[in-house]
Amino acid sequence: MSRVRVNNFSVSLDGYGAGPRQSLDNPLGVGGHRLHDWLFATRGGRALMGHDDGEDGLDNRFFQAGEDGLGATIMGRNMFGPSRGPWPADPWNGWWGQDPPFHHPVFVLTSHARPPLRLAGGTTFHFVQDGIHAALERAREAAGERDIRIGGGVHTIQQYLRAGLIDEMHLALVPVLLGDGERLFAGASPGGGPPGYDCVELVSSPAVVHVRLCRAPVPAARPR
Amino acid sequence: MSRVRVNNFSVSLDGYGAGPRQSLDNPLGVGGHRLHDWLFATRGGRALMGHDDGEDGLDNRFFQAGEDGLGATIMGRNMFGPSRGPWPADPWNGWWGQDPPFHHPVFVLTSHARPPLRLAGGTTFHFVQDGIHAALERAREAAGERDIRIGGGVHTIQQYLRAGLIDEMHLALVPVLLGDGERLFAGASPGGGPPGYDCVELVSSPAVVHVRLCRAPVPAARPR
Repeated sequence: MSRVRVNNFSVSLDGYGAGPRQSLDNPLGVGGHRLHDWLFATRGGRALMGHDDGEDGLDNRFFQAGEDGLGATIMGRNMFGPSRGPWPADPWNGWWGQDPPFHHPVFVLTSHARPPLRLAGGTTFHFVQDGIHAALERAREAAGERDIRIGGGVHTIQQYLRAGLIDEMHLALVPVLLGDGERLFAGASPGGGPPGYDCVELVSSPAVVHVRLCRAPVPAARPR
Repeated sequence: MSRVRVNNFSVSLDGYGAGPRQSLDNPLGVGGHRLHDWLFATRGGRALMGHDDGEDGLDNRFFQAGEDGLGATIMGRNMFGPSRGPWPADPWNGWWGQDPPFHHPVFVLTSHARPPLRLAGGTTFHFVQDGIHAALERAREAAGERDIRIGGGVHTIQQYLRAGLIDEMHLALVPVLLGDGERLFAGASPGGGPPGYDCVELVSSPAVVHVRLCRAPVPAARPR
């Protein structure tokens, strides 16, 4: 059964998934790059940059588990790139170059029409104008038995959380204080009650805390 | 040199140091009791309740380290008790009974005059009406070479954080989502920048993550 997952989503100690004032120079906002230091120190993260080294322990295991078993990714437009508004004639093609590390269809939530962008390695970006439910439907169709990743950013995860559509979240808590930015759990629970997730795993490396949350009641264990 | 410390202060995964609607029945607000489950499972926490058992590992070491070396505690009135407004003739005497587990002077921030309350075991509650700086001055005098604990709650810690008066914070991150309540790092950094603390320790038990933050630059290591 296909699951809807958040994986390797980094959050600061004060709850921010991105710093303030995102831009071309600061894709994760001012100070936000520190959220990904742990990720780019792992073997898997280093491999994305063409290196054959890196941390090969707990953090790398979480990184890889987050990459495995995926058939589609959904992301917000602000995660796709820094451009806003209607797409120009020669538009932004993503942060990830000509061979992005997805290797499956990626559905980008946007208000502005754009034809699909097919890149090397099996990644095609589809631009979805009709909202989170339509994007998830298309992602389900593309993923088949495989899982669907809600990639981010904060606003996109919040939308899927509020709609009760996320089965499992793996958050990486990074012990830095950003002081400002986009807070993941702001308004995640509009009624004020608990959002209805149980912690099923809590473990820390010296760099980062890994928390796995599953929608309560906790489903039967699956081999990972 | 006497330090100003926060220790064993529990915060939910979504950043709350207390749930909403604190009351006599829910001293830590609705759902907030879950923040202290880890603490009352430690050997030291169990001892407070007269038991001779409990977790004797990482969590207990942090609990005990937080209790050691203290000469005074400062707390807000809402941590002292659920009563509000002027003190009645037969006032609330704290959550902790006739022999509170402080064994040193405790300074309670309040807007309403009240004579000191001397209880067994060396604990005297002093009621301070002239603000956080005056309370700290009195606590320093009482503590001598020993450290001063800012006990809580959230609002009191925030006031001391904003005033730049806290040297070290040990937070216990509890993997529950409260959804609402008093958020520790809300407005901790009014200017939007980082509050200026570095993480010097990050370690997790299966129950709780311990984070130690020191005011940057990190002071030389001290034996614990």
